[in-house]
Order: sequence, then C-alpha cells, then structure tokens
Amino acid sequence: MTEFPPECGKKGSKSSAVELSSFGIREGISETIVSTGTESPNAAPVGIIVKGGRTFVRLFKGTHTWENVFNEKYLAANIVYDSLLFVRSTFFDLEPSEFDYVPVRGLNFPVLKKAAAWVVFECANIKDTDQALIADLIPVEAGFNEANLKSLPVPNRGFNAVLEAAVHATRYQLTEDEKYLELIRRYESLASRCGGENEKKAMELIYEVLGM
Amino acid sequence: MTEFPPECGKKGSKSSAVELSSFGIREGISETIVSTGTESPNAAPVGIIVKGGRTFVRLFKGTHTWENVFNEKYLAANIVYDSLLFVRSTFFDLEPSEFDYVPVRGLNFPVLKKAAAWVVFECANIKDTDQALIADLIPVEAGFNEANLKSLPVPNRGFNAVLEAAVHATRYQLTEDEKYLELIRRYESLASRCGGENEKKAMELIYEVLGM
Repeated sequence: MTEFPPECGKKGSKSSAVELSSFGIREGISETIVSTGTESPNAAPVGIIVKGGRTFVRLFKGTHTWENVFNEKYLAANIVYDSLLFVRSTFFDLEPSEFDYVPVRGLNFPVLKKAAAWVVFECANIKDTDQALIADLIPVEAGFNEANLKSLPVPNRGFNAVLEAAVHATRYQLTEDEKYLELIRRYESLASRCGGENEKKAMELIYEVLGM
Repeated sequence: MTEFPPECGKKGSKSSAVELSSFGIREGISETIVSTGTESPNAAPVGIIVKGGRTFVRLFKGTHTWENVFNEKYLAANIVYDSLLFVRSTFFDLEPSEFDYVPVRGLNFPVLKKAAAWVVFECANIKDTDQALIADLIPVEAGFNEANLKSLPVPNRGFNAVLEAAVHATRYQLTEDEKYLELIRRYESLASRCGGENEKKAMELIYEVLGM
C-alpha cells in the first residue's frame, strides 16, 4: 500500500497526531481548495497562511466559504494537483458527487475526492470585519488519499501559470481593470507552452468565464 | 517504510519498470534539476519536455550539462522541491558532497541528495545545432529518496515565483534587457508574500547575482 508519509495523518488518527508540515502546509501561503458546509458542500481556492508559528485564513465576505465557516466553524484544506479543479472551483460550484465525507467530531465533513490529502481545521478566534473574516486554524483531523498519490507532483510552470491566471481573473472580475487581462494572456502563453491538456482546458475555461 | 508509489521505480529496479508518469514527468515541461558527469558531477535546472508521446530535452551549447551529455550520453532528472537549490544550481556549481551516486549500466551516475526522486535517461538521436543540442530521452533507471518525501509538496505561489525569477534572471544575463529586472522585482514581492524562508533566501541570492 502507498503510505505517504506513514507516521501520521491517517484517516481516523487522533487530533494530536496531525502534523501540518507532513501535509506540506508550511511557512508562507499554501494554495489549497477549501471545502466547507456539512449541509450543502462547497469548495473554493483558499490560501492557508502560516506566519510566525500561527496558522490562519482570510475569507472574503459574501462567499459560500465565508458563510459556512461563520456558521459551522470548520473547514477542510484539500491539497490538489489538478489545475482545472482550481479554476472550476474558483468560478463554479462543484458537483455533489465530487465530495467525500469524513467523520470529524461527530460531523460528516466534506472533502474533495480529487485531494491528494486533506486537513480539517477548527476555526477559532474568528474576527469578522467589513470585508473579510480572519480565523485561526486548529488542525483536528487529516488524511491522505492514496488513489491520488500515484504520481509525484513535479514543478510545472504551466500549472503555476494557471494558478496566477485564476488569481488575476478574480481580480479582473472585481475591478474590471484591463491590466489583469494582459497578465492573463501572458500566463495563457506560459500554460500552453509548459503545461499539459489540463492546463490548456483550465485556461480555456478562464477565457470563457471572462468572455476573452 | 514510505513507499511512493510502491509499484515501480525503486533503486535497482529494472529499466523496463521505469514509468515516467509515476515520477510526475508528464505532457508539457517538467522543471527538474539535471545532474550529469560521472567524472565531475554538475547540476543545472533543465525542463524535461514531453510532447506527443516523445520525451526530449534541449540543452544550450557551452554549458557543463551540454558538454557532459555530448560526451557521456546520459543525464539524471532530479525532482526537487527546494527553491533555493533551483537558484543555486542556476548560477553556481553545487558542492561535490551534494551528489549521491547510483549504479546505472556499469556507471556510477550522480544524482542529487536533495531529490525527492530521480530518473536517469539515456540520450539518443542527439541533434547538435549552432546553439543547442536536442536529445530524445530513454528512461533507464529511477528511484525515490524516501528521506526527502516526508512532507507533501503543496502548491505555493512563492515557490513558483522563484522559478519564474530564476528564468528571467538568466534571460537578463543573456540580454541585459531591463524589462527582466522589473519582472524579477514583481516575483520577489510574490515570493516574499507567499513563500517561506527558503524562497526569501533564493530571491536574495538572485538579487546578489544580478547586483540588484
């Protein structure tokens, strides 16, 4: 059986066993897809911030993720290597069939079937401002999805370009500043040159969403 | 024992067992650090290109990598998650102590100690032009380095920014076009915001090399 890493983080392991660093969540901002909502599961790209030993998250008001965290005080960070899934979850609701459910403190919490690994966090010390919510994250449960760990993720500038383009696409939607379209075009060229099929589809979807 | 993935690619496995996709080398350009040279080991970032089922590489004339491949017809693609190592190997020679040696067809071939995995390729159908060498790559041996697979690599825009900055830094060195310095400054800001200590050190090194 694939075990990566073997020491911790198994489905069903105790909370105390969740070592964030084994899941690659490290100093800086880890780009994950966050799933939330035990009633009606939702997923969207969210950066997990680790700074000076503190793990926290910033969620924009009005989003489903914000609403679910505000109400339920839990979120799952899914580690995903699929650029198209990043883009789809940026702009669209995922299908209910794309979620799995894992037992966490008596809840059935949604995680992504395509995740290589997931960490469910309790959201504590929630600070709610005009624009966003900031919450400290306490890991309570985590697991690896062996079926999605069959190939090693290798740095790919095309994959990276899709992430950047998705960030700029959301900024364009907020501001309509054309400088973002120019950046997106540059990243499309990089994605097309260095990426694979998935990156091409992801960029096509961004173009479609923005009417480019 | 950590086994990732378990089916193939163990040190000492037969050539026929090398499944490139298990090592994450996929359609598009996989950013690896290539090690070469059984006499005097060398390492430099090189993209492994997979296009239409063909795996190949393009090496610029005058580099140590070019010279070693031209003479010995082998290279190892090392899968590395260390942004500082990407930058160090872009501009400097690594220390001899940073290499391990693996038996490949009667050779002791250099691979990087910090690699999460490595694939040694035979270079075939070498086409040598004025500026570069193009070679088809035939995988002959591969392995995972369990000690370097203890944490899952998670997408990080800071890490990605360092890769972009390193690419632009080499272009600046070739052309002295100041537009590359502007791009590097933007990526520095991203690396500093989204990366960890390693990304900060990597960007400092780029600035130092370019005298910025």
